[in-house]
Amino acid sequence: MTLNDTVSPSMATSSNPLIAGARVAGTEVYNTAGDHLGEIYDVMLDKKTGKVAYAIMSFGGFLGLGEKYHPIPWSVLDFDPARGGYVVPMTKDKLEAAPMYDSQGEPDWDDRTYGKRVHDYYGTMPYWMM
Amino acid sequence: MTLNDTVSPSMATSSNPLIAGARVAGTEVYNTAGDHLGEIYDVMLDKKTGKVAYAIMSFGGFLGLGEKYHPIPWSVLDFDPARGGYVVPMTKDKLEAAPMYDSQGEPDWDDRTYGKRVHDYYGTMPYWMM
Repeated sequence: MTLNDTVSPSMATSSNPLIAGARVAGTEVYNTAGDHLGEIYDVMLDKKTGKVAYAIMSFGGFLGLGEKYHPIPWSVLDFDPARGGYVVPMTKDKLEAAPMYDSQGEPDWDDRTYGKRVHDYYGTMPYWMM
Repeated sequence: MTLNDTVSPSMATSSNPLIAGARVAGTEVYNTAGDHLGEIYDVMLDKKTGKVAYAIMSFGGFLGLGEKYHPIPWSVLDFDPARGGYVVPMTKDKLEAAPMYDSQGEPDWDDRTYGKRVHDYYGTMPYWMM
């Protein structure tokens, strides 16, 4: 049982509707003004639905020390092929004031009040309601 | 702006509705009979909807050589905390005959005929119809 291997990986990428989780991690994040905001650290998946609840953007810190993590609703991220990164339509200040956590501890992902606060901040529908 | 950091990561994990993509990768996969089938290599995300289209299970090979990759619809995987891995309700033979690819080339993810074949094999609805 073989597959359609005639499309090279690079060709497939251009129109590829899918992206590997490992490729999302490490991708740079900018805002529409071109400011570099950080990079994607990981994605948080809803176990039941298999939906990305948040992309976790990391910024600051060095070798993991002092790094901050922002859960960002997936729908807020737009991939810009020209820049090779995701674009978030908000100022650096607005993003820096967004809900975040650090290596001291992850938020309680089960807490919907928290989840709602994150989604409200970005003006998106909570992932569990979509 | 701080978060609810009072819940330790380990406590949060038990009832955690979310899981990090990086934690999914590397998780072992078994079948209901207890046979070890392989491990999760990565997840393929639908860029537009942010939904996991497939978990990619790898098996065989050594240091990436000769390894085979199976795209498995997310809904087929059941996490078994006792085993610390995912359980797939199918025999080893049935899984070994499932659509797969190797390091020679990824399938054309944009090809819905291919996608439908994968989903049909597992008896699940295609990810783009859910």
